Amino acid sequence: MTNNSSIAAEITTVLDGAWHDLRETLRDEVDPQIQLGEPGCTVDQQRERVTNQLRALAARGHGRIGFPHEYGGTHDYGASCAAFEIQAFGDLSLLVKSGVQFGLFGGAVARLGTAQHHETYLRPIMDGELLGSFAMTEVGHGSNVQRLETTAAYDAETDELVIHTPTPSAVKTYIGNAARDAELAVVFAQLMTAEGGHGVHAVLVPVRDQTGATMPGVTIGDNGVKAGLPGVDNGTFAFDQVRVPRTNLLDAYGGIDGSGNYVSTIENENRRFFTMLGTLVRGRVCVGGGSGSAAKKALAIALRYGASRRQFEAPGDQQETVVLDYLAHQRKLLPRLAKSYALSLAQNLVIERLEELQGAEAGDKNQEGQRELETRVAGLKAVQTWHALDTIQTCREACGGAGYMAENQLAQMRADVDVFTTFEGDNTVLLQLCAKGLLTDYKEMWGDLDPRGTARAISRQLAEGMVERTTGRARLQKLLDVAKGRDDDSALDDRGWQLSMFEQRADHSLEGLARRLRRIGDGDAFEVFNKAQDHLLFAARTHIDRVVFEAFAEAVDGMDQGPARALLDQVCSLYALSSIEADRAWFLEHGRINTTRSRAITTQVNDLCQALRPHVDVLVDGMGVPEALITAPIAARRV
Amino acid sequence: MTNNSSIAAEITTVLDGAWHDLRETLRDEVDPQIQLGEPGCTVDQQRERVTNQLRALAARGHGRIGFPHEYGGTHDYGASCAAFEIQAFGDLSLLVKSGVQFGLFGGAVARLGTAQHHETYLRPIMDGELLGSFAMTEVGHGSNVQRLETTAAYDAETDELVIHTPTPSAVKTYIGNAARDAELAVVFAQLMTAEGGHGVHAVLVPVRDQTGATMPGVTIGDNGVKAGLPGVDNGTFAFDQVRVPRTNLLDAYGGIDGSGNYVSTIENENRRFFTMLGTLVRGRVCVGGGSGSAAKKALAIALRYGASRRQFEAPGDQQETVVLDYLAHQRKLLPRLAKSYALSLAQNLVIERLEELQGAEAGDKNQEGQRELETRVAGLKAVQTWHALDTIQTCREACGGAGYMAENQLAQMRADVDVFTTFEGDNTVLLQLCAKGLLTDYKEMWGDLDPRGTARAISRQLAEGMVERTTGRARLQKLLDVAKGRDDDSALDDRGWQLSMFEQRADHSLEGLARRLRRIGDGDAFEVFNKAQDHLLFAARTHIDRVVFEAFAEAVDGMDQGPARALLDQVCSLYALSSIEADRAWFLEHGRINTTRSRAITTQVNDLCQALRPHVDVLVDGMGVPEALITAPIAARRV
Repeated sequence: MTNNSSIAAEITTVLDGAWHDLRETLRDEVDPQIQLGEPGCTVDQQRERVTNQLRALAARGHGRIGFPHEYGGTHDYGASCAAFEIQAFGDLSLLVKSGVQFGLFGGAVARLGTAQHHETYLRPIMDGELLGSFAMTEVGHGSNVQRLETTAAYDAETDELVIHTPTPSAVKTYIGNAARDAELAVVFAQLMTAEGGHGVHAVLVPVRDQTGATMPGVTIGDNGVKAGLPGVDNGTFAFDQVRVPRTNLLDAYGGIDGSGNYVSTIENENRRFFTMLGTLVRGRVCVGGGSGSAAKKALAIALRYGASRRQFEAPGDQQETVVLDYLAHQRKLLPRLAKSYALSLAQNLVIERLEELQGAEAGDKNQEGQRELETRVAGLKAVQTWHALDTIQTCREACGGAGYMAENQLAQMRADVDVFTTFEGDNTVLLQLCAKGLLTDYKEMWGDLDPRGTARAISRQLAEGMVERTTGRARLQKLLDVAKGRDDDSALDDRGWQLSMFEQRADHSLEGLARRLRRIGDGDAFEVFNKAQDHLLFAARTHIDRVVFEAFAEAVDGMDQGPARALLDQVCSLYALSSIEADRAWFLEHGRINTTRSRAITTQVNDLCQALRPHVDVLVDGMGVPEALITAPIAARRV
Repeated sequence: MTNNSSIAAEITTVLDGAWHDLRETLRDEVDPQIQLGEPGCTVDQQRERVTNQLRALAARGHGRIGFPHEYGGTHDYGASCAAFEIQAFGDLSLLVKSGVQFGLFGGAVARLGTAQHHETYLRPIMDGELLGSFAMTEVGHGSNVQRLETTAAYDAETDELVIHTPTPSAVKTYIGNAARDAELAVVFAQLMTAEGGHGVHAVLVPVRDQTGATMPGVTIGDNGVKAGLPGVDNGTFAFDQVRVPRTNLLDAYGGIDGSGNYVSTIENENRRFFTMLGTLVRGRVCVGGGSGSAAKKALAIALRYGASRRQFEAPGDQQETVVLDYLAHQRKLLPRLAKSYALSLAQNLVIERLEELQGAEAGDKNQEGQRELETRVAGLKAVQTWHALDTIQTCREACGGAGYMAENQLAQMRADVDVFTTFEGDNTVLLQLCAKGLLTDYKEMWGDLDPRGTARAISRQLAEGMVERTTGRARLQKLLDVAKGRDDDSALDDRGWQLSMFEQRADHSLEGLARRLRRIGDGDAFEVFNKAQDHLLFAARTHIDRVVFEAFAEAVDGMDQGPARALLDQVCSLYALSSIEADRAWFLEHGRINTTRSRAITTQVNDLCQALRPHVDVLVDGMGVPEALITAPIAARRV
């Protein structure tokens, strides 16, 4: 092992985090035949290919990761997120199809269902024998799930639930697995009994028989061609008084007993709804992590090409200059590489927390921890997916015409990741959820948060002191304490000063927002809230930036001294300073830096880009993208 | 005509500029059958469709616009750019295919060829009977055209040119019309005679015979599937000692006489090369304008959807809120609408200038005017295409899942426009060209500008006084003069103050850059230049921002008083303030605004968004997107 490859291996281990061994195993097992797509096929061919690949993955046991051991599952719950990230280095249609089958559909049966559902369905789901859909979104209701219109009315006479689509806007749409494959669907609908409505619940509804014929009363449509994800058969479901047994209700949080009475351990309808949704937070965790993998693969391709492509000669040179030696090219790619590292480390902490809170060992006591996790995941997913989209696009442009050709892999990734910014929660809506979670210190349910409710909660918070507290990580706190009070004198690579900047940006914007929203009176609630919406988004984003940077700083701080740590230390500074640089207007406006320092930060970002340039090969290898999945001719390894 | 529609009509007239009548005629003639594509077809089907549509457009005479009247052309040269913008409201594969055929291929024959070429080729080219390619880019040489490797060696014995591809990196690639249709190609190659090399020239080379069979010695490849533009048959050409008559050399700027001697009216090889390329600047003008149309269409779709889609209810409301009533949604779409207006007006001035300098009435005396136009076009194309990409993407996200579905038209546009940022000149390279043109006051040829030459030119400029002068438009100068010297007191909607901000940003960044580059010594030229690359890009971009804003301000100032002017006045302020807001860090760093004012600008942008919200329908209609080409179901006009 050369020195460089041992440095890269150490970096990979750090980035892999707690599930390093599983990730390594999955990397070893990578099989391009069943994990990559082929450009230029028709939608039908793509769907056929992906369904076959899904079954091949299931045959290798990939579908079992994270399901309960007693029904044949393997590994822990968090492992399924780590595995998802490795799978995301392959074709993203396959990734999303797998995510629908094992994560959303299988996950809903596992999390919202009870023993009888597990007994009946989990094995065939894990093995890819029973393909299914997660039918939540409706034509008229995307982000606002509580307003779904589909109904599930209990008929006491026959002990059945009647699933119905009352209006065109109630048609389920964009549903993965719907157009071609699903036999069974988890349908989210307003549950109604003789007592009245109980809010949104999930019901298992057969949509095709085993021959593939559509079930009576069900209408299946095809969403057809999309911007990307050609191998995913998104479609629509409409139900015309479709009857299923009462026992098809996934009743972990609310059910109907043998006498036709609604029963739930959670009294409050809003709380029940958000508790149910909270158990499905893994979907967002996976989407964020998967998009991160796509960004890494794009960077690997663009950086390798940039390190070999030459264009324009410097005066006196015969040979043209390597494009990655140009500052402008470094500026495009290296800060995004640094952010990819940062997000990867933040993602690891989220997965660990998910396992703690929802894994086999978890109780369900920690409501506040669950809300905090959901808050963080909402914001992080938005930041991760926008980063991925921006990064893949930048990589495409950095590769010029070659980046536009399908064979170089960026085109399909770019088209596929696009929708990650609006599915599993629209990013703009998610950032608002994140901000509201912060404002109310995770103590309120999101659903209760109409503007006036939020204003009341904020007033309480402000009365009690700080809205948001520091992470309380002792290791980072030390660095912070040293840095405090000498802002404009600190070296720009002082980790404590960097942490302090991230902290001040996040805290001050949130506190300012809280003060602003507290002014909400009685009549003008929507207006006040709406006028502060850009502030709200900023507060959420800067909170996530801080969480991400703290994860990076802590990871570096935990490494042994040596060349790998020295390198990541610089990458960490590049992340910190390019984030501060992007918001330097805010820091100036709020007197956190002076104009001299502001300009020095830009210079330092440039210097860090040039300092990292010689280490690009190591930093690319360190990301741990399986070599067999990089087939782009422009990224061929030079010997 | 209702009041609103008359306001919209007035706005369209302003946006249309000098070629309003032609644009209106083309709008009336719009035919979705031959101007729109169909999602989900195979590449072969798309190519077939586009070739047929191209011929149908030619049959209607669209290919004749802008060609010399004596060979059957119609309208003036500038008109071809206006027509291109209208065509860009339709399918962009068809647009690019047309651009290759009539603009690049036909344009090269018209501009680089002489009477005998015109006589022989222009009619069949205009009529779509002779399809051809513009074969410039090579595998190893995209931006750096002077380093092309393909050779055209004169053989005096046979009076022929021998076209040859000496290395794999010399293969022509990404060439439109190559993979399927071209019979003839304009091949850019290093011209060599017994005297030696004469630099890059263009030669007509038959690549297929009339049956479609590849000509001997020519190898044609297919670039296959791309990120977008599925209907354009991009491909590769390699030449193995292919012989063509000497007269196939397009010899307007340099030719070989009957005795085999090289003759040119332009002595200097660099100057000759850039003069030849300069005649082709229309390609960049069209790409910028075409991308602008795509952005407008995307905004029309997203704004109409945003004005009808509802999600989440305000407290006390039964109905959910229209999403365009949310500030965050307005913030996404309205500043981009304002910028689209601004760019459209700047584009008009460029087309007028192109017509002045290269139209039938133009001499070829005005070398400096030509360089100035090229400088402006280089920068404007970069800003326009990035704006279009960013806008279409934002519109896609603003439409959520619906925006991802092909039927809503955003997906294909997004994928197609992507490559506009790197073809017809890579945007990053173009911005650098723009900055270099400014630094040397357009007096130097770009090709001479190695860093040391640039430094010398800059020193001369600085010695002579200002690097860049104001536009000298008397009307704007008055506004400016009034505003000077009371920066932080002016109202934010004071046009003079806004103009002064744009002027200061552009001038100061260019002057600072010039001072920085003057330090270039003898050994470190590349290093100094490279370290200033981000500054260079900023100077170019802010110059273009200023040009664009001046165009907008002047257009508004020229309107009659009334509701249309009042509306555009606000749109103009929104453009100005959102541009200043985006760079407020720079304004703060350079003491041009104080922190209070900086924050007030953000508030004012928000207020302008809310003020314009009720006028969205008029502003959408004002853009003049032909209704028949908006087929997205989510953008259906409500009655």
